[in-house]
Amino acid sequence: MTRTKPDVFNANCESRQVLALIADRWSMLVIYALSRRTRRHGELRRMIGGISQKMLTQTLRALEQDGLVTRSTYDELPRRVEYSLTPLGRTLLQPLQSICRWAQNHLPQVRAARDNVRITL
Amino acid sequence: MTRTKPDVFNANCESRQVLALIADRWSMLVIYALSRRTRRHGELRRMIGGISQKMLTQTLRALEQDGLVTRSTYDELPRRVEYSLTPLGRTLLQPLQSICRWAQNHLPQVRAARDNVRITL
Repeated sequence: MTRTKPDVFNANCESRQVLALIADRWSMLVIYALSRRTRRHGELRRMIGGISQKMLTQTLRALEQDGLVTRSTYDELPRRVEYSLTPLGRTLLQPLQSICRWAQNHLPQVRAARDNVRITL
Repeated sequence: MTRTKPDVFNANCESRQVLALIADRWSMLVIYALSRRTRRHGELRRMIGGISQKMLTQTLRALEQDGLVTRSTYDELPRRVEYSLTPLGRTLLQPLQSICRWAQNHLPQVRAARDNVRITL
């Protein structure tokens, strides 16, 4: 069996599926939120404004399935469930943080471009 | 008027809208595809496997509106329309390329995690 070089431009390449998972605002925000430390579901939900309970659960499950996030359950009452990044997930931090920082730092320029479009329409 | 520090975790912050635009597989693939040079619509469509005509048009329009991509029209027959990255768009290349490369390079590890989930289910 020959394995061709991974190519994100190819819709049938598995690397495209991986890209689709991480090139998603919710996945990015969850990974970014877990960058400093382990967090519980409710904590993540409060931290990431606008995420629904369902979307957070789905995102965490997909990230867990792909080996980026790990879920630990502690037998306490009430039961404690915590999420943290795996070593594989941590390798994503640097590129994801630079995307989030880009969005924060280039906001004035994007805003200017948007205003410009509005004026010339 | 006070401007608070941009915060992607805040659903009402404009930086979140910017993140939503770039943290998207199609936007990423379009920007990645334009990294080397200017391209036409049809060229982009053939290059990015699985993108529909409509999705490509929408993505290009959003990227143009936010000042990341520029559209040049040449008066020829048939009319030639080309897309390229703006200087602002080029500042995104480094983080986006590292995301795309991550997806290509970490594929074996993600694949192993997925297989593992299947076995333990």
